[in-house]
Amino acid sequence: MVRPDQRRPEHLRPVTFQTGFQKAPAGSVLIGMGNTRVLCAVSVVEGVPRWMKPDDPRGWLTAEYQMLPGATADRAPRELTRGQISGRSSEIQRLVGRSLRATLDLTRLRGRTLYVDCDVIDADGGTRCAAVTGAGVALELALLKMLAAGALRDWPMTRQVAAVSVGLSGGEPVLDLCYAEDCQADVDMNVVMTSNGQFVEVQGTAEQAPFDRAQMDRMLTLAEGGIRELFRLQREAVEGAAAGRP
Amino acid sequence: MVRPDQRRPEHLRPVTFQTGFQKAPAGSVLIGMGNTRVLCAVSVVEGVPRWMKPDDPRGWLTAEYQMLPGATADRAPRELTRGQISGRSSEIQRLVGRSLRATLDLTRLRGRTLYVDCDVIDADGGTRCAAVTGAGVALELALLKMLAAGALRDWPMTRQVAAVSVGLSGGEPVLDLCYAEDCQADVDMNVVMTSNGQFVEVQGTAEQAPFDRAQMDRMLTLAEGGIRELFRLQREAVEGAAAGRP
Amino acid sequence: MVRPDQRRPEHLRPVTFQTGFQKAPAGSVLIGMGNTRVLCAVSVVEGVPRWMKPDDPRGWLTAEYQMLPGATADRAPRELTRGQISGRSSEIQRLVGRSLRATLDLTRLRGRTLYVDCDVIDADGGTRCAAVTGAGVALELALLKMLAAGALRDWPMTRQVAAVSVGLSGGEPVLDLCYAEDCQADVDMNVVMTSNGQFVEVQGTAEQAPFDRAQMDRMLTLAEGGIRELFRLQREAVEGAAAGRP
Amino acid sequence: MVRPDQRRPEHLRPVTFQTGFQKAPAGSVLIGMGNTRVLCAVSVVEGVPRWMKPDDPRGWLTAEYQMLPGATADRAPRELTRGQISGRSSEIQRLVGRSLRATLDLTRLRGRTLYVDCDVIDADGGTRCAAVTGAGVALELALLKMLAAGALRDWPMTRQVAAVSVGLSGGEPVLDLCYAEDCQADVDMNVVMTSNGQFVEVQGTAEQAPFDRAQMDRMLTLAEGGIRELFRLQREAVEGAAAGRP
Amino acid sequence: MVRPDQRRPEHLRPVTFQTGFQKAPAGSVLIGMGNTRVLCAVSVVEGVPRWMKPDDPRGWLTAEYQMLPGATADRAPRELTRGQISGRSSEIQRLVGRSLRATLDLTRLRGRTLYVDCDVIDADGGTRCAAVTGAGVALELALLKMLAAGALRDWPMTRQVAAVSVGLSGGEPVLDLCYAEDCQADVDMNVVMTSNGQFVEVQGTAEQAPFDRAQMDRMLTLAEGGIRELFRLQREAVEGAAAGRP
Amino acid sequence: MVRPDQRRPEHLRPVTFQTGFQKAPAGSVLIGMGNTRVLCAVSVVEGVPRWMKPDDPRGWLTAEYQMLPGATADRAPRELTRGQISGRSSEIQRLVGRSLRATLDLTRLRGRTLYVDCDVIDADGGTRCAAVTGAGVALELALLKMLAAGALRDWPMTRQVAAVSVGLSGGEPVLDLCYAEDCQADVDMNVVMTSNGQFVEVQGTAEQAPFDRAQMDRMLTLAEGGIRELFRLQREAVEGAAAGRP
Repeated sequence: MVRPDQRRPEHLRPVTFQTGFQKAPAGSVLIGMGNTRVLCAVSVVEGVPRWMKPDDPRGWLTAEYQMLPGATADRAPRELTRGQISGRSSEIQRLVGRSLRATLDLTRLRGRTLYVDCDVIDADGGTRCAAVTGAGVALELALLKMLAAGALRDWPMTRQVAAVSVGLSGGEPVLDLCYAEDCQADVDMNVVMTSNGQFVEVQGTAEQAPFDRAQMDRMLTLAEGGIRELFRLQREAVEGAAAGRP
Repeated sequence: MVRPDQRRPEHLRPVTFQTGFQKAPAGSVLIGMGNTRVLCAVSVVEGVPRWMKPDDPRGWLTAEYQMLPGATADRAPRELTRGQISGRSSEIQRLVGRSLRATLDLTRLRGRTLYVDCDVIDADGGTRCAAVTGAGVALELALLKMLAAGALRDWPMTRQVAAVSVGLSGGEPVLDLCYAEDCQADVDMNVVMTSNGQFVEVQGTAEQAPFDRAQMDRMLTLAEGGIRELFRLQREAVEGAAAGRP
Repeated sequence: MVRPDQRRPEHLRPVTFQTGFQKAPAGSVLIGMGNTRVLCAVSVVEGVPRWMKPDDPRGWLTAEYQMLPGATADRAPRELTRGQISGRSSEIQRLVGRSLRATLDLTRLRGRTLYVDCDVIDADGGTRCAAVTGAGVALELALLKMLAAGALRDWPMTRQVAAVSVGLSGGEPVLDLCYAEDCQADVDMNVVMTSNGQFVEVQGTAEQAPFDRAQMDRMLTLAEGGIRELFRLQREAVEGAAAGRP
Repeated sequence: MVRPDQRRPEHLRPVTFQTGFQKAPAGSVLIGMGNTRVLCAVSVVEGVPRWMKPDDPRGWLTAEYQMLPGATADRAPRELTRGQISGRSSEIQRLVGRSLRATLDLTRLRGRTLYVDCDVIDADGGTRCAAVTGAGVALELALLKMLAAGALRDWPMTRQVAAVSVGLSGGEPVLDLCYAEDCQADVDMNVVMTSNGQFVEVQGTAEQAPFDRAQMDRMLTLAEGGIRELFRLQREAVEGAAAGRP
Repeated sequence: MVRPDQRRPEHLRPVTFQTGFQKAPAGSVLIGMGNTRVLCAVSVVEGVPRWMKPDDPRGWLTAEYQMLPGATADRAPRELTRGQISGRSSEIQRLVGRSLRATLDLTRLRGRTLYVDCDVIDADGGTRCAAVTGAGVALELALLKMLAAGALRDWPMTRQVAAVSVGLSGGEPVLDLCYAEDCQADVDMNVVMTSNGQFVEVQGTAEQAPFDRAQMDRMLTLAEGGIRELFRLQREAVEGAAAGRP
Repeated sequence: MVRPDQRRPEHLRPVTFQTGFQKAPAGSVLIGMGNTRVLCAVSVVEGVPRWMKPDDPRGWLTAEYQMLPGATADRAPRELTRGQISGRSSEIQRLVGRSLRATLDLTRLRGRTLYVDCDVIDADGGTRCAAVTGAGVALELALLKMLAAGALRDWPMTRQVAAVSVGLSGGEPVLDLCYAEDCQADVDMNVVMTSNGQFVEVQGTAEQAPFDRAQMDRMLTLAEGGIRELFRLQREAVEGAAAGRP
């Protein structure tokens, strides 16, 4: 079973973080996972959503996810053209928001909302995981900027978060599938973990061929290894940016 | 840790299937799981979605999920009022569709689309799982009717499908949470399985407090037990309906 | 001229009221008129619509009407799919709202809005009349519950309201048309009356063959008789529910 | 009981028809009923709606109704701003369409659709009746033009149609209410008749104070008289236009 | 190069202003420029748009532009049918709003918003220029009425505004193109000027054949002459209306 | 009058073209004009828009323009959230489409549609001009790729196109305004030219302070100079990309 890029089953694609890619947001990163690239930006907006009660001490974090039309081999019409967000994008942006909120003590945001915008530049599989992982870095950069500007009293981010996809290909688990692999795979599982080794989200889907308990265990193990590597790369990116490297 | 209805952690709520509840659809069931009730109906429509290529030999199955406004303690405005399906409903109906398609050999539907409508009458937690489990019965009834009418050549449903929620409450896994438990739980996991003992979907979400690998294992074990019980009850319901009992 | 179910021209179809069908709303009824079944629920919401002036002493009542997709022989796409309520549903829910408001002294609602949700389970003609008649019962049940809970000072419902359809079939007036009759009829008239013998709405439509004054008179007489019977059945349903019978 | 303009209860407001007001449509009329003015235009479009079956021998007629923002004392926002047609406009345009179709043998339209556009310039009560009455003239002018152009083989309009409002004011029936009267009236009834003396639509609504059978009879008699006068004025307008008078 | 109506290149079409055409708005004009006719109405609404800061001393003026379906040779579907304003209409109403705001000292509107509604009755080219020119008159009439009613302390309109189209036809500049000319022209330029001889908007578009600097100069000269004539006709219309002539 | 970045009035900001930025589209460029950055991508889609007649020998080119939410100092909500494209974006994308079509012989596209997607990464004034200028390069790259792939018989691009903004600041014309200058300027003019020295679009807007003919002349002269420089830089970018430089 040879992978399109000769990777071993347990290897990630090359990962890059280009920090500060967009100028205006408090934090921004262009993450690359192989040929998948997602622009992640975190903006700070005063106030909280209307559904929060006036006495709620928390701030909030919400995420939006969209693909640029040119991100896929065949141009994908903008969701704006239809006037409605697609079910897929809606599902993904809810996942990204939940994943990032799991890293935060929201009460420390002091009445502000963080908007996390994930816009896919190039889509080659794993865009939702790249969005979570890139946004994890953009979020930390934004909070560092807020802290430096005196907008935070206490550091609100209690842990890192990252995500990776795993799949079953020919019955064998493989890590971080590119689009060609994803189309062939029997199972597609997205795993989101925090740096204290716990799951935030586990989403396994098997429309083609269901999977048994043993396969699930092997996929989770593979995912854990990949995410640990992502935590290390995220740390390097944040430290590089703090040290003034793009 | 006492549950609101004194159930043991590994017990389902009482489950009922009222078959033939709606007159026009090929198959329909009003499923009750405790105080949660969902009307599941399967209608047969000639033709397949436009995105399917002309030479695709498959039929299709698609699902829609909505809550009636009076299903919740506080009346919930119809999504039609806003003109857009909510992210939550969109996510759920995609889950229901994938789960049911996993039971079918779509090539045997012979150019037809099955519409699965899941409308929540009363919502007391676990509506998406009730929708999958009820729709599993409505689907089998619809196919039996099609078979009797000569609309099918070969039986397309290769296995049963059912779903249940599990959660972590005070660190301990509990099965089939009602709404009050769901609000308190740290983790909310929905598990969809087929009757050959494999997973179709595993969706664990832990916005409040992430969960570790051991907890995940215990939750999956609990879910498997519950779903096996649901398979038995589904069989009784289908056989009862075939024998002319509502 | 034989009717599909051998009814005499002046006879209603069998009418049933299943009270308390839905758990959360203050009042709810599943009304059956022959094979037509409509779930009517009345929910109480604090506050009044924004268009009401701050010094308006009235509460308000508003209605919504939708058909479940499986209510008709051919599955009808949800209006949500198109993103807009249909002209037909809009017209019907305005009729239901006006009809029920005609029974109320709105000033006695004390700043609350009653939402009347009418969802058609099975459609076999006369759904708007069933909606008015069922909602009339659900409204009374909701008000009784509010009264018992101390939410009302004075009883606001000054009379009953019910509705029935009449038509001209082969030049002869017939009462309470089922769908097959409705399709054949030259005229379709919906009559809404209050229990003091007055009309709230008379809507006669004759796209196929207009009707003269004498025919109109005969149709109104037929409708009056049918509605009086409905008043009696409504009273039984409310009293049965008060006595604890479903 | 004195009316704002000293009219007797059974008198219409002054009625004017300015034919050919708009240049492009096959027929167009600016009708004035007192201070209410509605621009009615009939355009001919090849083809029929998609819901008509291919073997349906009929053409079709459909109507649209909108108010210009400046038609009312307080500027009314365009329905386009909200992105949805209002329930009221939807109801009215369905009424106009049904009323005009009742005058036609649709099979003689030979595969064409007539669009009837009713745009209210000034609204002072009775706009839907003015729309029907004006459109009745515009339709006849359009058909005459089609006939002259050889687009019709047989004359399809078998009778005239006109409409008027009646109401109960202080318990007494009055004809053709202006806006100030309409606001005060207990009952608002719109009556649409054809020139062979039959009803197409009777829509009586009594949110404030229901009406009894005797009152209904008196209102219908008043309406019949008014509509007969409208038929006479429509004839003059069509003949004047045929003779080249605007 | 003969024009369809034998006009000389530098001549306007006949221009008419029917003031007070619509009853309710503070100012209204039906402008005719040849066969193009646009109903322009200015309504006064208390309050300013939400995007204006509370301490902004200005009132506001906003414009809306729509074509009636029957304005064009082939009936144009309402933009409401699609649920969205078209790019063209959006562009035009922004142009009209900017043009009229350029004549006003907005601080003198004292917390009010003027709505300028431009509805095209007949479209034969140049509708956006007719809208600006007609709305210029309707605005002055509305302000005169506000002044008379004591709603203004100081006169806010510091100059007139009018607009005309110019084009290149066979390489030669022509003024005020009708639709037939517009379709043939290589360049379509709309020029908006104020009565102190300055440009508010210059919009030249040349999809077919770009134009050089010398041609642009000649077009601007032609436009200036036409607009000066429009200023004179606007003055006559306002003075006529003030003197009680329609 | 010193500019924020000390530029002379007739100088452009630094211009950069990063070709091949996005992988899937036939041509893509990330253009930078000072701190403004726009991702321009050209995708090839088989078929032409539905409004084109079957016998029309042309292909087509259409453009879409959106700003990423993080492009501006204050995060701008996505237009998708409101469900409608804004008037501003609609106006800009129409401008971009017209400008690029002016460079093409559409009959040589042989039944294909080119989609030009312009997504603003960073907005610091002049985004529509950057979009035109960047898209001009992306278009040429896309056509070169089509030519190499044998998808074109004849070269369809007959000239270059580029755009620049000019403004009046303190009565003096300045070239290529950044956002801070744009906010202060009395006049904002966008000029689109082709490489044979002709105008495609001239759009001057002067809400604040109208401009006279002499000022307009000076602005056009400034724009011509800037655009000639842009043509030179576009040529370098295309040649660099052809030579394999990013």
